[in-house]
Amino acid sequence: MPEFLKLISLTQAREILLPHCHQLIPVGELLDITRAGNRVLSQDILAPEDLPPYDRSTVDGYALQAQDTFGASLNQPALLKITGEVLMGEEPPGTISSGQAMRISTGGKLPLGANAVVMREYTELVSEKEVEILRAVAPGENVLFRGEDIPREEKIMTRGKRLEAADLGALAGLGILQVEVFRLPGVGIISTGEEIIPPCAQPLRGKIRDINSYSLYGAIQKAGGQPYILGIVPDQFDLLRKKLEEGIINYDLLIISGSSSKGTSDLLVEVIASLEEPGLLVHGLAIKPGKPTIIARINNKLIFGLPGHPFSALVVFYLLIDPLIRRLSGGKEKYRWKEAQITREVASAAGREDFLPVILEKGKDGLRAHPLSGKSGMISLLTRAQGLARIPPEAEGIVKDEVVEVLLLREEIE
Amino acid sequence: MPEFLKLISLTQAREILLPHCHQLIPVGELLDITRAGNRVLSQDILAPEDLPPYDRSTVDGYALQAQDTFGASLNQPALLKITGEVLMGEEPPGTISSGQAMRISTGGKLPLGANAVVMREYTELVSEKEVEILRAVAPGENVLFRGEDIPREEKIMTRGKRLEAADLGALAGLGILQVEVFRLPGVGIISTGEEIIPPCAQPLRGKIRDINSYSLYGAIQKAGGQPYILGIVPDQFDLLRKKLEEGIINYDLLIISGSSSKGTSDLLVEVIASLEEPGLLVHGLAIKPGKPTIIARINNKLIFGLPGHPFSALVVFYLLIDPLIRRLSGGKEKYRWKEAQITREVASAAGREDFLPVILEKGKDGLRAHPLSGKSGMISLLTRAQGLARIPPEAEGIVKDEVVEVLLLREEIE
Repeated sequence: MPEFLKLISLTQAREILLPHCHQLIPVGELLDITRAGNRVLSQDILAPEDLPPYDRSTVDGYALQAQDTFGASLNQPALLKITGEVLMGEEPPGTISSGQAMRISTGGKLPLGANAVVMREYTELVSEKEVEILRAVAPGENVLFRGEDIPREEKIMTRGKRLEAADLGALAGLGILQVEVFRLPGVGIISTGEEIIPPCAQPLRGKIRDINSYSLYGAIQKAGGQPYILGIVPDQFDLLRKKLEEGIINYDLLIISGSSSKGTSDLLVEVIASLEEPGLLVHGLAIKPGKPTIIARINNKLIFGLPGHPFSALVVFYLLIDPLIRRLSGGKEKYRWKEAQITREVASAAGREDFLPVILEKGKDGLRAHPLSGKSGMISLLTRAQGLARIPPEAEGIVKDEVVEVLLLREEIE
Repeated sequence: MPEFLKLISLTQAREILLPHCHQLIPVGELLDITRAGNRVLSQDILAPEDLPPYDRSTVDGYALQAQDTFGASLNQPALLKITGEVLMGEEPPGTISSGQAMRISTGGKLPLGANAVVMREYTELVSEKEVEILRAVAPGENVLFRGEDIPREEKIMTRGKRLEAADLGALAGLGILQVEVFRLPGVGIISTGEEIIPPCAQPLRGKIRDINSYSLYGAIQKAGGQPYILGIVPDQFDLLRKKLEEGIINYDLLIISGSSSKGTSDLLVEVIASLEEPGLLVHGLAIKPGKPTIIARINNKLIFGLPGHPFSALVVFYLLIDPLIRRLSGGKEKYRWKEAQITREVASAAGREDFLPVILEKGKDGLRAHPLSGKSGMISLLTRAQGLARIPPEAEGIVKDEVVEVLLLREEIE
């Protein structure tokens, strides 16, 4: 194993990842529309029929021929003969000729011969059989014609569209009960380390409960992936190799956390080297936290080795894996960086990007970012943080009031 | 039934609703932490124990007494005796006295007597038994002390907090496997109308497929509620009354759509009058679309009667019910209004708030809102709309380039 870690930048790591992602995009799955809300279409949708399926009234009133109302007013009403009533959900009881009108409710089917509806408010009933029209209506007024909302054969939604509430309604209205959406990328989560025990166990001796499986679980879910906790593996070549082999069969991505100590990191690299091509893509990132990050590809599955520190693991997840999962689930990357002024001086080594947990506050000149202080390895840094402030690699630190980019971690801030 | 609809403003309707909401907040439910991501705590969380449960090293190196390293440098290293190695997940094999050091990895348990760890990079192995320390470390350096991340008894999360990824990790780390979160408000959806048929049926004669049940389903889900489609009820007093009686037993909220035609609207008011107190709260809103909206309370459940037009029903949902469901699920109302310049003149009647579907575009002076044109009752207006522009009640219209408030309907715009 090389002692020297070839550190690459975050940008380089993303570029290395990009061509591999395209081959990972999961195939679609067919879902009932009630389960497809907020999912992303993997097919175009053509309207199989006209919506509405017939000419409909959009008001309560009288269906008639618009030309019979031309010139009608309060002083000079047009008198029309009432020939019947359109019952909701039924065929009209006849057709309309000049001089005739038929009672109709909102959503009623327009009788043949009629081309407009006058609202009841602009009519005066003279008798059971006659109605005065007090206002002119234009042809087409208060009518939604067959196919006017959505015409048959129209491409109403395209592959890549995230389904919103109105879309589900439109699909139901067209009789489309199932759609093909991008499958959620399945992400297997493995924790490594002799000291890690499941959260249900008591941490005796030098043991500590597994944090990363659960914070990553939540983060994967939020990014749009389907997380699977695969358990804890001791730092042993055979056991880790077996777990990885199983994982790459069943999931699109694997995340192994626990490579903070040099031994674990090297072990993961050894295991990856023993598996299929192309193997190791990245070993070490010029970022803090997150230096020992590993990226590998085995067959068509991606493997990420993250630091064991809960804070560090989650930071690397947000920077590298979250955008990847969003892409894989067919959605667009959500723009989540904002500018903010830092509220105190922070030191940083040149040649490395630093990411600081910050609390955000709205100041009079825009967002202000207060760096949180705490030691490496603290999960409480991230439970309190609202964002991660980026100190660029060329900087040897930032001074008070300097503007930095901040990755937003909570929706309330956006 | 009164012929005259007493129209009230949206603001008044919200004020009328407010006191009723507080009595509706559903009790919490106990969930496994893997199911609690993005849900809202209905309890405070106290740390049941210290995290970490013992003093831990945050680096790979040597555990020692900091005072033994004071003054140490590359030229004047401090020579310490190696007394063993802390194995991961094990008790240290002894204690540390002055002049001694013990090998330790990241996450290893600090031996008694030691108060700091020096990183391996700043050491030089002299023999199996001796190590040179090339740099001084301060007491506490590279150590995370017991309880330093989260001390026992600390209130780490409060009721009302939405659980993020890092929170799930912290809970797991503390051995908390289940938490009490606000139950998702259950919302029953009923469609009324003789013309409405299920989406799986063929729309023959004057029938049309149910759109509202599905668009509302998606909208309720997105707001954080648990939707239930209760089916289609014909416009008959007994059947509608029976459906409402069942609905208010099983759900926190009921939404009935289809009161666009005067007959249906009156029928719903009659049914409500025949049920328990306090009954009708609002009948008619001074908004367009959405005028025939009905709000009622039966026992401790809220009932909303929405217009039958899919576009109108969804607009009223977004304006009135979406913020309510967000409040009921324990979350904060998400701020989703933005200012935008309208791109063409729009007419409006004074005394009424109008909501126009718009497409949004980023202009050089901020957002620009293009009103979509279309007829009342079109679902395609909302499948295309990215926002709803508000024309205030005092305006008789807005001129080109005037700034309006826009309710954002899609996340991509935020």
